Amino acid sequence: MVKYPSGHSPQPNGDTSNNESKTNYGGRGMSLEEKINQSNTYYLTKERAVIHKKPTPIQVVQVDYPHRSAVKITEAYYRQASTTDYNGVYKGKYIDFEAKETKNKTSFPLNNLPEHQREHMSNCIKHGGIAFLLISFKVRNEVYLIPYESIETQMASSNKKSLTYQFIQNNGYLCQTGVFPMLDYLSALDIYLEKLERSN
Amino acid sequence: MVKYPSGHSPQPNGDTSNNESKTNYGGRGMSLEEKINQSNTYYLTKERAVIHKKPTPIQVVQVDYPHRSAVKITEAYYRQASTTDYNGVYKGKYIDFEAKETKNKTSFPLNNLPEHQREHMSNCIKHGGIAFLLISFKVRNEVYLIPYESIETQMASSNKKSLTYQFIQNNGYLCQTGVFPMLDYLSALDIYLEKLERSN
Repeated sequence: MVKYPSGHSPQPNGDTSNNESKTNYGGRGMSLEEKINQSNTYYLTKERAVIHKKPTPIQVVQVDYPHRSAVKITEAYYRQASTTDYNGVYKGKYIDFEAKETKNKTSFPLNNLPEHQREHMSNCIKHGGIAFLLISFKVRNEVYLIPYESIETQMASSNKKSLTYQFIQNNGYLCQTGVFPMLDYLSALDIYLEKLERSN
Repeated sequence: MVKYPSGHSPQPNGDTSNNESKTNYGGRGMSLEEKINQSNTYYLTKERAVIHKKPTPIQVVQVDYPHRSAVKITEAYYRQASTTDYNGVYKGKYIDFEAKETKNKTSFPLNNLPEHQREHMSNCIKHGGIAFLLISFKVRNEVYLIPYESIETQMASSNKKSLTYQFIQNNGYLCQTGVFPMLDYLSALDIYLEKLERSN
């Protein structure tokens, strides 16, 4: 993850002169998680939002004290997370999301979205939060923001075990990619929030 | 942490017949963190809020694969958290807080509150979130919810390296303790939120 001291981050249109070099620099080769983390750092620096990835839950079984000040963990195991990976605050709203990557070109398999994450996102919405997925179609090099509400409605009305690419295009919001931020998912979210406000 | 299947949690006034036994059962001997976790589980079950403790950040250095399916972490270290321990959504608001315990009877030393946590809470407020501390005075067996805004104002106007107990009494909200939840900090928060609304 790239980190910049507060107020010293490079500008979006700073030092690259054409779109091609921008795309190469800000994208391929990095994982979806790395792109989101870089974007969150950028948003924080620019005072646009406070959104963090939660640490991976680890069950510590045994520790050792090789030095007086340092604790060395010598036996531990990954645990299943009970929530989603990312949350925070944006424009006064509670934001909660999960990032998913698929190599599939035509659909997103719903078994990628375990029951406890569905329940968590559903609960967040009940309490007035905003919950969504960021789905990356690796082959297409596209990332969509899909409100969890759309997914829930779709799952309730269909027994299909996946969301089609067309459904995601129709109900999701394409995230622009670049250098700073690498994945501008908050601008995609803005369009959804405007739509929500109009419908209220 | 006590966990109950959804909809099957014991009732607040269920099976204890007097206040004394309630107080003994729901309190002493458990850490502040355990009480908060139990309360969060209770709030979740009762559909009052979605608030979770973030996992402790751990830097994994080496892993082993003793079985085909299990990953065993054999070398790892605790990292410093970049935010606070708890966050979530309550009544449509983003909630962010840190729990602190002190054996001190007359004040809370501010060196218990590292700079990165101060900055994080300050940022959350700027974006419309609610940030506070839960300060436990162990000897007094009292826990106060103190809005971070009050602490920030106090720090800006004074060079003192601690918050006095009197300051905390005057600016904080005493949390009721019980069985379910063990620490009813959301009812203390309600009083603060009402005050915020009146002043807007």
